[in-house]
Amino acid sequence: MDDYSNDIILTGDRPTGPLHLGHYAGSLVNRLALQGRCRRQYVLIADCQALTDNAGGAGRVAHNVLEVALDYLAVGLDPERSPFVLQSGVPELCELTMLYLNLVTVARLERNPTVKAEIQSRGFSRDVPAGFLCYPVAQAADITAFKATLVPVGDDQLPMIEQTGEIAARVNRLAGRDVFPEAKALLSTTPRLPGLDGKAKASKSLGNAISLSASADEVSRAVQAMFTDPGHLRVSDPGQVEGNVVFAYLDAFDPDKAAVEDLRAHYRRGGLGDAVLKKRLDGVLQDLLAPIRERRARLARDPGQVMRFVAQGTHAAREVAARTLSEVRRVFGLRELEPAAKRLAATW
Amino acid sequence: MDDYSNDIILTGDRPTGPLHLGHYAGSLVNRLALQGRCRRQYVLIADCQALTDNAGGAGRVAHNVLEVALDYLAVGLDPERSPFVLQSGVPELCELTMLYLNLVTVARLERNPTVKAEIQSRGFSRDVPAGFLCYPVAQAADITAFKATLVPVGDDQLPMIEQTGEIAARVNRLAGRDVFPEAKALLSTTPRLPGLDGKAKASKSLGNAISLSASADEVSRAVQAMFTDPGHLRVSDPGQVEGNVVFAYLDAFDPDKAAVEDLRAHYRRGGLGDAVLKKRLDGVLQDLLAPIRERRARLARDPGQVMRFVAQGTHAAREVAARTLSEVRRVFGLRELEPAAKRLAATW
Repeated sequence: MDDYSNDIILTGDRPTGPLHLGHYAGSLVNRLALQGRCRRQYVLIADCQALTDNAGGAGRVAHNVLEVALDYLAVGLDPERSPFVLQSGVPELCELTMLYLNLVTVARLERNPTVKAEIQSRGFSRDVPAGFLCYPVAQAADITAFKATLVPVGDDQLPMIEQTGEIAARVNRLAGRDVFPEAKALLSTTPRLPGLDGKAKASKSLGNAISLSASADEVSRAVQAMFTDPGHLRVSDPGQVEGNVVFAYLDAFDPDKAAVEDLRAHYRRGGLGDAVLKKRLDGVLQDLLAPIRERRARLARDPGQVMRFVAQGTHAAREVAARTLSEVRRVFGLRELEPAAKRLAATW
Repeated sequence: MDDYSNDIILTGDRPTGPLHLGHYAGSLVNRLALQGRCRRQYVLIADCQALTDNAGGAGRVAHNVLEVALDYLAVGLDPERSPFVLQSGVPELCELTMLYLNLVTVARLERNPTVKAEIQSRGFSRDVPAGFLCYPVAQAADITAFKATLVPVGDDQLPMIEQTGEIAARVNRLAGRDVFPEAKALLSTTPRLPGLDGKAKASKSLGNAISLSASADEVSRAVQAMFTDPGHLRVSDPGQVEGNVVFAYLDAFDPDKAAVEDLRAHYRRGGLGDAVLKKRLDGVLQDLLAPIRERRARLARDPGQVMRFVAQGTHAAREVAARTLSEVRRVFGLRELEPAAKRLAATW
């Protein structure tokens, strides 16, 4: 593993539902590995961003903040080393966003490939909410507020990092000095976990994901229902492993990689039934999820304590964001009505 | 005058330069008349908005905050009854703007006639900054934050009030109750003061305006240079009063309306020279500006006191805006990490 001891990492999730195994394989494992190996890892619970395509869903977002924080704690994220930051609890992020909106043209935002793709996938076309078009700028605020140097992303998110780089460079140029370090993308090496139904993406809203809080029964039922190879009718037939969801999950979660390779070869040449494979995967997932589920249930008994962790992380993050905002306000030539230190000290 | 005793008024200026006679005739006189006749009149010094087409001009905006506050005090605005509110000192306005951006489509913003016209007049075309496109939403935040019921505007600003109404209605609908009252436009009855050169608009940046802080000499020179009727070559010739800047200023500032009517008739039929007219206008403007200039000079000796007025007004406004924000956050289903009251009490 590379040396990240000087890096400040920004990562996080939109609290649109409890986290699932796709999040676990795609980002939580990575966060656990980075925790304690970097200077600081801010984990943003992006409730404001969740509103950009969810404005009507009031209530759900607030509830899911607790769910997501529970998931974080249950998998082993340590709020001391990886502070949980509630986005809406850091108003400085809104102030930074508003300032940065002056540095980006509408045409540039409309050219952003991630925004373009997501506008299409959500069917917004001409009815795209302004908040949605502007969310790369809000992400730039998130990243720069903490002077993050490393942002774990999938390659579909690279244009967001590029946009942040442009804004940071613009501020640095206005300031005549490096207010912001370069924020680099930390590209995920794990392939995206497919949905249980074989669709490209596992997602809570599509109902094709196994949530981290799923009961043992729910896990077993989900594994039973998994898409395999529809052409694999008799055990003795050769089976296809490409697009076979059971293999994707075994690759992601089975600790015995060699055994999975043997199974893959066996399945390909024929003679290995889906039932055997699914039994193995069920065991693997039950082993993985049982301790997470248990910790989660214990923590869920004291939601007040969970939210105190969120409040503490948010508070610590706010101090950093307020210092950054003061710097950026100076760059824009805005007047401080009171010493920034006082503003900070009095806020919480 | 109508009964405004129950109205909350929001008005203000972008601090892009010291105020001039165009501001005096177009809005300051109106504010002085409304002061004390309404529930409250917030006067917003819109420094963030000034950045939307001015992001490179760091420094100027901060300096002009003091200039504008001096102008307010010098003309007789009372910071108790008409609190001066520094926009960038009320971060709640940014938070409201970010929330509202989710309620407005990009297409709707692009259709806004005021934005369209201003994009053209500034020559932005495709390079319009996102902050500029979004500024009607920021204005909706300003207006709704204080639950303003009356917004003095010129008719070119009516689309902004309409946009605010749409956002407020959307929030009310989401809330299932009237969080916001209707904000009505209070249309200005005074015609816009033309530039000294006869151009449609007097503006500091065009150098065709008389600032409230102009010296007696500057005023006289400006009156001497005023555009009149280029076809009026001999005193005995009939003169044109339409487009004649001296008459526009006499209409706006000469307290003796009957005398101005007589002069107008005399000028039309011929026999009245520009020199006589300009001498009269010079006297009128000197009488108007001398006490303002004197008060302004006295106040300018203690800029700290002026900024304390701004800080006090901003503080009072922030308490109101924070209460509104709490309500709107609830409508959007955002979670409060701490009681809103505590957040409020501790902020300043």
